[in-house]
Amino acid sequence: MPEDVSLATVAARAGVSVSTVSRIVNGEMRRASPATVARVLDAIEAVGYRPNPVGRALKSGQSQLVAMIAANLDNPAMATIASSTEAALREAGYVMVLCDTHDRPELQDEYLYAMRAQMVRGYVLVAAVASPALSELSASGAPMVFVTRRNPSGNGPFVGIDDSAAGAAVADHFADLGRRAPAVVFPRLGSSASRDRVSGFLARLRERGWSDDAIIRADGEGRSHLQIGYDAGARIFGGRDRPDAILCVSDQIAYGVNRRALERGLKIPGDCELVSIDGTPLNQWVAPWLKSIEIPYAIYGAEIVAGLQLIWRGEAFGERLLPYKFG
Amino acid sequence: MPEDVSLATVAARAGVSVSTVSRIVNGEMRRASPATVARVLDAIEAVGYRPNPVGRALKSGQSQLVAMIAANLDNPAMATIASSTEAALREAGYVMVLCDTHDRPELQDEYLYAMRAQMVRGYVLVAAVASPALSELSASGAPMVFVTRRNPSGNGPFVGIDDSAAGAAVADHFADLGRRAPAVVFPRLGSSASRDRVSGFLARLRERGWSDDAIIRADGEGRSHLQIGYDAGARIFGGRDRPDAILCVSDQIAYGVNRRALERGLKIPGDCELVSIDGTPLNQWVAPWLKSIEIPYAIYGAEIVAGLQLIWRGEAFGERLLPYKFG
Repeated sequence: MPEDVSLATVAARAGVSVSTVSRIVNGEMRRASPATVARVLDAIEAVGYRPNPVGRALKSGQSQLVAMIAANLDNPAMATIASSTEAALREAGYVMVLCDTHDRPELQDEYLYAMRAQMVRGYVLVAAVASPALSELSASGAPMVFVTRRNPSGNGPFVGIDDSAAGAAVADHFADLGRRAPAVVFPRLGSSASRDRVSGFLARLRERGWSDDAIIRADGEGRSHLQIGYDAGARIFGGRDRPDAILCVSDQIAYGVNRRALERGLKIPGDCELVSIDGTPLNQWVAPWLKSIEIPYAIYGAEIVAGLQLIWRGEAFGERLLPYKFG
Repeated sequence: MPEDVSLATVAARAGVSVSTVSRIVNGEMRRASPATVARVLDAIEAVGYRPNPVGRALKSGQSQLVAMIAANLDNPAMATIASSTEAALREAGYVMVLCDTHDRPELQDEYLYAMRAQMVRGYVLVAAVASPALSELSASGAPMVFVTRRNPSGNGPFVGIDDSAAGAAVADHFADLGRRAPAVVFPRLGSSASRDRVSGFLARLRERGWSDDAIIRADGEGRSHLQIGYDAGARIFGGRDRPDAILCVSDQIAYGVNRRALERGLKIPGDCELVSIDGTPLNQWVAPWLKSIEIPYAIYGAEIVAGLQLIWRGEAFGERLLPYKFG
């Protein structure tokens, strides 16, 4: 938009007052005649006026800020969710700010309180953990959408995938390909997402004929999925039973497992197939050896914003499970 | 901090009024006797009270928010800078919010205006581009630190590395190892950082005996360094002169070049050495074939916050070039 285009420019062009333009821009059209509205909309088009969402907020008294409170933004999956949500919010006239909790409850609390003090219009909790402020805010009815992990404190609007079905799909894949020694690697400090992926995988393997003790499992401590994969990989590749197919519940866990495999002189996928549930774009550049259930992170933003808009209108929003791609 | 610990808890423990505790917590110690101050500090320790920076801001009337306005948070280097700055700001009592400009001037403008409207205390511009709001804010004296790329609109406090010296160090490395056909890959849409890395590299190669036309150069269009590397790689590996050593001005460019090399059946580093200027932790997991000048992104946060504190006190802050590691 040219620097000098303002409400006054539009008003002059349309032959109306600035306050008339302002009301129409803010969606209050009832006081103006249809002809006036048409003239103002034409003028807006003609001069290239683009409303400043922040300016509009300051006038209307309602914040145009939405806070995304997410864990581990250095994870490409998180970064893609942030990016797609930021774009969708901007399209809808909102400005997104981003806070990284590093998966820590005390940081999540600090950011929730700080964003509440800034009077944000809504919250997007990506990979939320249980924390006092989260319970408090969600109980108080603050507009909130949970992404990837369900609300640890109860229910709440959710955008993600069917984690259990995704795990089952990988089990079917291993069974169909005739793998004999399947394994799974996951974080000990789990979440609804990792737990459901693992349980879906195990349940389907049992249906396909494996006994529980035949399935190799390894978890890792801490929050770094790279480290978790690397540590668990040491146990998995050092154990008595060598796996021929491993489900890694995230790309980063797979990167860690792969690095351990390389150190042990194993080839992936030649000696052992790795499949992750994630499928971030970085894989094609640095991990062509990895097969993935691809989660459509790039469309999360539109779903999240649609959810917030329902909530703001006072309507219910349950959960939206997005389709993943495999094979 | 336990949920029920407040100023009142501290006051009760110390046997003083809540307002006395509040003043001491906010650093106003002159009205209290040393004995009282000591008693309050002990009580704070004993009950585990942690001051809420936002609460303090609301009382003092000054925002405790600092905005980081950065390009491309899905780049691990950016994510590390964000993470280290967020930690350092939190330590100093501030809350950081993060906005991703995707390297686009119009988004940078939108976030600068939005953050100004939120009355943030300061701005950290990581990988800034030239934009009208940036010129306006920097001319108006808003507290601002530039990181990685210098202020495109003029001078300003800067935290980064000596890009030119880093480029020269890679040139020396190639020359010392007896490489014969050095090359460099960089973005066409350059920045102060990439331009200085390239010019430092070229200048040192000339000093070490190469003529200008003997040095292979390839750039790539657009903003994705992965794609830039991949596109430039096609030209570099398809050309008449085959390079034996390539400087890639970022890790992501190297990932792209490497992928192209793999497609052409070339081995890195066997057939051609790649060296990047970046050195993010992800390399050790997914790119062990890559040698890097390691930029100490994890300590940027402390330097950035030290810079902001100087600026807030009205003191000058020029530039801080941090030491990199190579070899």
